[in-house]
Amino acid sequence: MSNLVEEFNSYREKMNERILGQDHKFMKRFYNLDTNTYKDGALPAKTKEYMGLVASMVLRCDDCIKYHIGALHELGMTTDELFEVFSVANLVGGSIVIPHTRRALEYWDALNNEH
Amino acid sequence: MSNLVEEFNSYREKMNERILGQDHKFMKRFYNLDTNTYKDGALPAKTKEYMGLVASMVLRCDDCIKYHIGALHELGMTTDELFEVFSVANLVGGSIVIPHTRRALEYWDALNNEH
Amino acid sequence: MSNLVEEFNSYREKMNERILGQDHKFMKRFYNLDTNTYKDGALPAKTKEYMGLVASMVLRCDDCIKYHIGALHELGMTTDELFEVFSVANLVGGSIVIPHTRRALEYWDALNNEH
Amino acid sequence: MSNLVEEFNSYREKMNERILGQDHKFMKRFYNLDTNTYKDGALPAKTKEYMGLVASMVLRCDDCIKYHIGALHELGMTTDELFEVFSVANLVGGSIVIPHTRRALEYWDALNNEH
Amino acid sequence: MSNLVEEFNSYREKMNERILGQDHKFMKRFYNLDTNTYKDGALPAKTKEYMGLVASMVLRCDDCIKYHIGALHELGMTTDELFEVFSVANLVGGSIVIPHTRRALEYWDALNNEH
Amino acid sequence: MSNLVEEFNSYREKMNERILGQDHKFMKRFYNLDTNTYKDGALPAKTKEYMGLVASMVLRCDDCIKYHIGALHELGMTTDELFEVFSVANLVGGSIVIPHTRRALEYWDALNNEH
Repeated sequence: MSNLVEEFNSYREKMNERILGQDHKFMKRFYNLDTNTYKDGALPAKTKEYMGLVASMVLRCDDCIKYHIGALHELGMTTDELFEVFSVANLVGGSIVIPHTRRALEYWDALNNEH
Repeated sequence: MSNLVEEFNSYREKMNERILGQDHKFMKRFYNLDTNTYKDGALPAKTKEYMGLVASMVLRCDDCIKYHIGALHELGMTTDELFEVFSVANLVGGSIVIPHTRRALEYWDALNNEH
Repeated sequence: MSNLVEEFNSYREKMNERILGQDHKFMKRFYNLDTNTYKDGALPAKTKEYMGLVASMVLRCDDCIKYHIGALHELGMTTDELFEVFSVANLVGGSIVIPHTRRALEYWDALNNEH
Repeated sequence: MSNLVEEFNSYREKMNERILGQDHKFMKRFYNLDTNTYKDGALPAKTKEYMGLVASMVLRCDDCIKYHIGALHELGMTTDELFEVFSVANLVGGSIVIPHTRRALEYWDALNNEH
Repeated sequence: MSNLVEEFNSYREKMNERILGQDHKFMKRFYNLDTNTYKDGALPAKTKEYMGLVASMVLRCDDCIKYHIGALHELGMTTDELFEVFSVANLVGGSIVIPHTRRALEYWDALNNEH
Repeated sequence: MSNLVEEFNSYREKMNERILGQDHKFMKRFYNLDTNTYKDGALPAKTKEYMGLVASMVLRCDDCIKYHIGALHELGMTTDELFEVFSVANLVGGSIVIPHTRRALEYWDALNNEH
């Protein structure tokens, strides 16, 4: 696996374990909500992940972007579809989203070069 | 048509005409981009509108929310689907999205009571 | 009760009932989290409400500000203490917080003039 | 004077007096900083007001926008110059700035129709 | 001292000196306000630091978070209390605060492992 | 050229080529708009760059800040003028802008030490 993907995942997992290990009621429930929200429901999981990704892009959270790109990679998103998300995010959020688009595409390329 | 919907649409149209009437190159091109981005492409228009709505909710722009809810109403969104968008927006954007969720649902109800 | 307080509370209650009446799993759990987070715990409820208020101010959510000012009013906050919250919020969030400070103080005065 | 301008100014003045009347050290110093920052310095007042306006637009603070448009009106800004500010604000801040652009232009027109 | 804490503090100090060394009136006054705001007043310093931390978390400023966690460490905050701040920040600010919570806890652990 | 400047420019160029190489209609048009907006018009390019910089600072986008500081460096901005931009950005955006001010000044110094 590429360094970019590996480093993101291992830090994320390590710190999530550290947070959940504290056994704090709110944080456990919030993590639980977070996991369940992106499952199939009235809208399919993939549509929800697209929404999670676009929300992360306009709020400019690089780690959140990486997480949703990883999930969409597993759900079979194509590069053309990713660029559609980039369009909405850059239009709605403005040119300050461009630097995050650069890093998002770099992460996407890293995911695809793994194989 | 309900007052809420009518007032939003008529103010929006009046001021858009005023802005475009100035014939300023950037604003014309930007409005043009805005219109074209939500058309069918690698992702269907409906998915893009969902993304536009969730982006508007986490950025907490009531007028943008109304616009996308109107567009999704025309595209046949159900109330259950709208609540899925609410879920992602509130999860990602936090409890500060709740007041906007209230107004979004009020607008949705106004759209549906028109008939 | 003053109009400002009355209108805020009645709209908020009406729309919360409308949202919860939809019986959507995420929204119910999220509202439940929201209610429980501000209860006494490792930090007292009042300190948590101060945090909720300052977070609402820097994120510039007028309805959230009103809600927390109402809760702090019930918990016995003084005007001097409110100005301490204003200080932190304006320092951290900048002069764009000023218009929200105006409305926050107007709401606080309305709450106190009720009696 | 038009209602829009009149209402904005009178509410703003009333609540500023209320805030400063509390004689709170931080708030007085912060208001003082706010006033002094836009005076002529290494950059002229007009350039600083342009910066204050664009910052207010991308942060989407309608009252701040009105304040700076009022100041720039007094400094002789033209409609063409205002549209240049709109361009930068909409480009950098994205389409969520559009509704604020509508209200900004409405306020500008109200200022100009006073005469 | 751990690298994480050391690096943050030394870069911060170096650049603060560089900024203040320019002897610019606004920046000096603003830094001065920043320092004075968190002192004991109508609310105790610790409560104000809690507010500074929660504001920094919902605005997602990692360096600001580190600064306030450092100050609260000196004021004797416990890990349970820190998790209460995390609760309010994640609830109000949403899941985009999670990555900042990870880094906040890592910094807190680094502070505690110094001894 | 200093590392800081070199690394920023080379990563930016590499990823911009990667994005534009995808030949996606929206992204090409958006990049085009971005380039054209800062050219001389009813306001001179330098004033627009000041606006681009202050907008980037209050939205706290480090890469955007670097880009506009680079452009203003080429347009002959002085350090005193840069501090005027810092004043407006810190006043309007609050103390969360301070960490970005530190990095902005570090980048500015790197640009000037190149020679």
